[in-house]
Amino acid sequence: MKYGIAIFPSKKLQDKVNSLRKRYDPRYALIPPHITLKTPFEIDDSKITDLINQIKTVAEESEPIQIRVDKVSSFNPVNNVVYLKIEPKDQLTALHERLGTCDIEDTEEYSFVPHITIGQELSDEEHNDVLGSLKMQDFNHEELVDRFQLLYELDNGVWTVYETFHLGKKN
Amino acid sequence: MKYGIAIFPSKKLQDKVNSLRKRYDPRYALIPPHITLKTPFEIDDSKITDLINQIKTVAEESEPIQIRVDKVSSFNPVNNVVYLKIEPKDQLTALHERLGTCDIEDTEEYSFVPHITIGQELSDEEHNDVLGSLKMQDFNHEELVDRFQLLYELDNGVWTVYETFHLGKKN
Repeated sequence: MKYGIAIFPSKKLQDKVNSLRKRYDPRYALIPPHITLKTPFEIDDSKITDLINQIKTVAEESEPIQIRVDKVSSFNPVNNVVYLKIEPKDQLTALHERLGTCDIEDTEEYSFVPHITIGQELSDEEHNDVLGSLKMQDFNHEELVDRFQLLYELDNGVWTVYETFHLGKKN
Repeated sequence: MKYGIAIFPSKKLQDKVNSLRKRYDPRYALIPPHITLKTPFEIDDSKITDLINQIKTVAEESEPIQIRVDKVSSFNPVNNVVYLKIEPKDQLTALHERLGTCDIEDTEEYSFVPHITIGQELSDEEHNDVLGSLKMQDFNHEELVDRFQLLYELDNGVWTVYETFHLGKKN
């Protein structure tokens, strides 16, 4: 089965992002707004219990993270994904790297940039328009992230949460 | 915020149900296939930590449940919801009732029938057609349910998982 690991931010931030994703993200209906910690990977069902135990240890040995929404940015020219940049990059990258020590097949094509996708699969013209107009908006926001989720993908592309992990707590 | 409590069955069962919901359930995109344990209720954010502790105790004092998918049925004439009936009714009802002892506003209009919705908001004619054709299909399936989820609703009607609870285990 295909799994992924992600942070769902607060309802407030998700609602704000969804008001934009509705227009700019064709994958809007498949998963709520999130910060990807591990891109989708395949794992055999027989190995999932071991993996969950490894992830529990990573979560327990990490601390909650005060995240800041920074500015709107884009992965162009790699791809036309418009996103909210999430700080502090160092703490989120450290968590991402600790998760990388678990028995998860490495499927990551790009270096890790903590972000919440706002728009994707945009034409070059749409991309430039969206990026230009969003760069002028104020997205200033802070919140404490104290948990993340392990999800699996259904045949229709929708993601279901399987397990919640708490940062800095016994799971 | 509006919260709900639900069981997500296995991917296998969710995929099977989604192949039908796609055609018969206009709420298909808002939440994966699920067994509702508590219908949506409002709770103040300041009370959510207490409620989670209460639900943890309920989960710990309960046992995993071997569920059986029984037959397709309908809530008609109350409403035109077509669903998979889930057994054992007694064990699921007991869990539902234990959750009812938590500080959750009672918003339940109907008596508890453990089910997975397949179709809703159907016209009388659609309802009769769908029910007639699904009653001839074999849905025989069993699996062990060892967890349930607390979710909240976003402004766009989509549900996000906030917390996972394990049955019969320290949470």
